[in-house]
Amino acid sequence: MFKVTFQFESGEPTIAYAVEGENLLEVARKTNVAIDAPCSGNASCGKCRVRLVSGELDSKKTRHITDEEYEAGWRLACVSKVIDDVTVEVPDIASAYRSRMKVADLSSRDEIAIFQQAKQGIESAGIVMQNNMGIVHLTMDAPTLDDTMPDNERFTWAMEAATGLDKVRIPYSVLRKLPDVLREGEFTVTCIVRKTKRDVFVYDIFPGEDEPVIGGLAVDIGTTTVSAILINMLSGEIIAKASAGNGQIRYGADVINRIIESQKPGGKRLLQKAVIEETINPMIAHMCHTSGFDSHRIYRMSVASNTTMNHLLMGINADPLRMEPYIPAFFKTNSLYASDIGIQIHPDSHIIVAPNIGSYVGGDITAGTLVSLLWNKPEFSLFIDLGTNGELVFGNNEFMVSCACSAGPAFEGGDISCGMRATDGAIEACKIDKETMEPSYNVIGDPGTKPIGLCGSGLIDVISELFKAGMISPKGKFIREGRRIRHDEYGMGSYVLAFQEEAGSVKDVEITEVDIDNFIRAKGAIFSAIRTMLKYLDFDISMIEEVYVAGGIGSGINMANAVSIGMFPDIPLEKFHYIGNSSLAGAYSMLLSGDAERKTYELARNMTYLELSTVPSYMDEFVACCFLPHTDSSLFPSLEL
Amino acid sequence: MFKVTFQFESGEPTIAYAVEGENLLEVARKTNVAIDAPCSGNASCGKCRVRLVSGELDSKKTRHITDEEYEAGWRLACVSKVIDDVTVEVPDIASAYRSRMKVADLSSRDEIAIFQQAKQGIESAGIVMQNNMGIVHLTMDAPTLDDTMPDNERFTWAMEAATGLDKVRIPYSVLRKLPDVLREGEFTVTCIVRKTKRDVFVYDIFPGEDEPVIGGLAVDIGTTTVSAILINMLSGEIIAKASAGNGQIRYGADVINRIIESQKPGGKRLLQKAVIEETINPMIAHMCHTSGFDSHRIYRMSVASNTTMNHLLMGINADPLRMEPYIPAFFKTNSLYASDIGIQIHPDSHIIVAPNIGSYVGGDITAGTLVSLLWNKPEFSLFIDLGTNGELVFGNNEFMVSCACSAGPAFEGGDISCGMRATDGAIEACKIDKETMEPSYNVIGDPGTKPIGLCGSGLIDVISELFKAGMISPKGKFIREGRRIRHDEYGMGSYVLAFQEEAGSVKDVEITEVDIDNFIRAKGAIFSAIRTMLKYLDFDISMIEEVYVAGGIGSGINMANAVSIGMFPDIPLEKFHYIGNSSLAGAYSMLLSGDAERKTYELARNMTYLELSTVPSYMDEFVACCFLPHTDSSLFPSLEL
Repeated sequence: MFKVTFQFESGEPTIAYAVEGENLLEVARKTNVAIDAPCSGNASCGKCRVRLVSGELDSKKTRHITDEEYEAGWRLACVSKVIDDVTVEVPDIASAYRSRMKVADLSSRDEIAIFQQAKQGIESAGIVMQNNMGIVHLTMDAPTLDDTMPDNERFTWAMEAATGLDKVRIPYSVLRKLPDVLREGEFTVTCIVRKTKRDVFVYDIFPGEDEPVIGGLAVDIGTTTVSAILINMLSGEIIAKASAGNGQIRYGADVINRIIESQKPGGKRLLQKAVIEETINPMIAHMCHTSGFDSHRIYRMSVASNTTMNHLLMGINADPLRMEPYIPAFFKTNSLYASDIGIQIHPDSHIIVAPNIGSYVGGDITAGTLVSLLWNKPEFSLFIDLGTNGELVFGNNEFMVSCACSAGPAFEGGDISCGMRATDGAIEACKIDKETMEPSYNVIGDPGTKPIGLCGSGLIDVISELFKAGMISPKGKFIREGRRIRHDEYGMGSYVLAFQEEAGSVKDVEITEVDIDNFIRAKGAIFSAIRTMLKYLDFDISMIEEVYVAGGIGSGINMANAVSIGMFPDIPLEKFHYIGNSSLAGAYSMLLSGDAERKTYELARNMTYLELSTVPSYMDEFVACCFLPHTDSSLFPSLEL
Repeated sequence: MFKVTFQFESGEPTIAYAVEGENLLEVARKTNVAIDAPCSGNASCGKCRVRLVSGELDSKKTRHITDEEYEAGWRLACVSKVIDDVTVEVPDIASAYRSRMKVADLSSRDEIAIFQQAKQGIESAGIVMQNNMGIVHLTMDAPTLDDTMPDNERFTWAMEAATGLDKVRIPYSVLRKLPDVLREGEFTVTCIVRKTKRDVFVYDIFPGEDEPVIGGLAVDIGTTTVSAILINMLSGEIIAKASAGNGQIRYGADVINRIIESQKPGGKRLLQKAVIEETINPMIAHMCHTSGFDSHRIYRMSVASNTTMNHLLMGINADPLRMEPYIPAFFKTNSLYASDIGIQIHPDSHIIVAPNIGSYVGGDITAGTLVSLLWNKPEFSLFIDLGTNGELVFGNNEFMVSCACSAGPAFEGGDISCGMRATDGAIEACKIDKETMEPSYNVIGDPGTKPIGLCGSGLIDVISELFKAGMISPKGKFIREGRRIRHDEYGMGSYVLAFQEEAGSVKDVEITEVDIDNFIRAKGAIFSAIRTMLKYLDFDISMIEEVYVAGGIGSGINMANAVSIGMFPDIPLEKFHYIGNSSLAGAYSMLLSGDAERKTYELARNMTYLELSTVPSYMDEFVACCFLPHTDSSLFPSLEL
């Protein structure tokens, strides 16, 4: 066995032991050392760069490591075998995807505004924002030698009298504590119940007369980021909010790689564990700790996620999603409870799962569509969700069509050498001086935070600015020279936003021609999807009346720049609305309101799914979009190119 | 720490470690060494006798150990503290209650006759012996690019078409495996379902077209013995049968001691674990192993047990059962599932719990009453269940009254120095020669099995024979002398059935005056209960038309001897019927038939419960019964006393 010491830019080192020839990335995984591997460890993404400090590694050379860098100790963990006692340094950027969990400061109005807006919007569409959970107070006669009715029967009678319902369902978890709670409360108890027309289900009982908060949990499981809120089920108030990287990241950046990993022996369980035990449960614990809430008093949960994510969450074989004819295990299911999959809330909690409508258009989109209110307006609107994939919904109160395009993870910083999520250290907005070619930027985090990478909105700005400054060609190649522009031995150009001494990382923050090319293909996928879908429906871009942009690209998104690089259609900027995480807002709405839940199922049933790959013109359209802004500049008249 | 070595009459020793002063019985418990302690370890029963082989123990002297025995190393484990490295020998008799699990040989017709009789009897009363479980075969079109309906929706449609029911419930456990099973079976599957008027619930699916056996499990949880059968839910066939000592025995012989133990910290969990993880689950594993059955294909379970046992099984606080006003947590519950309490069968299996009707008349009696068919006959019949307590039901097709009497565990060998369950090594029948006073007996087990103790039916015979031979007085004191009759230093007499050299144990098998006294009080409790109940109803013993005797006393019970000692009323012997374990037969019937289940709930609702302690004459009646056969010999005219 060899000793492997992982050092970090901050914090204590982690020690692991490995047998000869063991893969360094695997050693890191089993030791819970966070090293991103969006490509699942096949040396294609170059994200798992670590620096050898001492000892020897048997590492393959790859295009991601220059000779100079190799000399300086840089290696890809995924192609390194342990053959010696080694010490390796893991730079922050190597785990930028898996950034620390963040519990939101709710004193900032921004954090809760989206939910209030969603609630008000949906209410204005005639949906009652209420659910069937409630509190019932009961007082019973204490038993005597002349009145020996058992606890269960006594309690049932009292509940029937209080609710007028004659079917009272008392699960084992309540029956088990019934004798103790009745006696502790001297036969006065407070009950958490769910009432339907037919019956009343008792979730919990407490001694005495109390007004407990009934907790609810809404979760948006993105391929890259998981966000959640803890709410008061009766008032709708947001009690806490948190986000964290999806723990599955180390099994691949996109859904296809995750599915492939899940097919390996034990893989389904590993991926389920990564999102539940390593991501959602710690988020619940953090939110409950911060707000002083008992997690067992969360009695209902809702989940909005793409089809692959909800399959992996439930440990269901997702392979048929990626194999022709691309079949999900379910669109809708009512069968899931917290105890089924080990979510650490009340075990009898029902989990509402936002319905899928296709293998690549899932519950995140149906939930987001609910919030977009597309279905309630006569105007034709376009809803764009920029997650790890891009999904579109177009329509109005009479019809809706949706499609998905494999934009890849670039909008969330994947497939980009210095890409990262919109979290501390990310450049979220940027300007480049046309003369000096010097950048100025905003970095997410406390004032003075140094940049360690670029998030989606930052990438849009940088590419737009480079293009507007004439520094790159419509094909994304560098066409000017300067101190921040470099070319490597293969001739590949790059632009340095922050040299190592300016950066918060151990290496330069830069954008390469490969990055630009990846991003151009991502934005091309979005725009070509919009064009193809509209053409298919015999609509023209000019007929789009509103555009709702949602997703993890970051609230700093500059719509003008997004139009200028040909990502969004060239229509008046006031028509664009960034609506934030509409998936989470939709999950919140479905959790809070039975009406909203039913409406979402109805939307899903009525939404048409367009499989872009079956539209012959899509590929041509895509190729035409892989330019800045587009091969057909007449589509972007306002840009004066 | 001291080393404690437990030696056994056969098998490898067990090593444990104990801190200075630790109680030896506790050390045995935590090491899973079986030592009975029916009195819960308060030095009153004398069952936990072990022999010190080497080292020193700090042991209190008690009346249970003579000076000679003390000299020979005999100690009570419950009053011994570890103060040295010791080796102690644990004789077989010290764990006779916890005898090995026994899987029945079903080629013996006797083992299954009781269930066939129960089934036929109940059917003859008009109950349909069928349940709502069934098998459904489905064949679906495989999905194509033109037919992309998800698995869940495809399966639901096919099930609706096959069953004509439009509510199909697919639990998570089925949804999780749906994609794999559908594809493995090429969209032909076999489903295990439960059908009601309203809906169809899918328990399980298998690939292809198959005729699987739907397993069911019926369990009788006695205070002393647990019995179970594995059945085919469609045919009613018995697949396997097993019995074992209730693992809770080491926490006390009777329900009161068990409840007291359950009130200690962690006690509820310990008692639940003892009956589930240490008793029922191993029985399931053994039955499944023997019959080659997959335990996950058991989809329903039924339990018949006394009120305390079903509370402890479910981990529910049983203390209110023993404290005035004696309130159970429930009479009836429909809320229990296998996964709730960790029964190792299919986790979604519903557990039918035979209803209780009072704190001391439980589901074992309501299930037994179903089988006795009392409720279907115009004749007045008496049903007697001789378990660790005695319970009676008297009535006919118009009314039924039940009561319980604390007979104590003597009928199952408890409170008797050489008492044991009706299992291998137990003397089950006995004759004593009036002249020579030499005994002859039948021992349960293979031919040649040597006696190690006495079970209930053996005790009845021995006491009856001793009395008929004029060896004991009506008060149970020895009044003849002989080589098998001894008196200890306090003058207490005893009769040796087998000297050590004749016995299969390390000590003599004998019956003492204390044993006889205990047994007389037990039989007195039964007879006085019969008298009191009948008097209360203004009935006379002569009006009893049939007597059904059930319970673990053993099939060898000699009714004439039971009458001769004044245990049963002096009515013609042909009126007595031993019906075996009616609790298990009732559990079997409720498992096999929804009608039988509903009938049992109906019986329970309609049965009157008589609390004997509230009847003023009961105590006088009891005292009068504590003679052989009774102080009023006119009650036993046929005995010619």
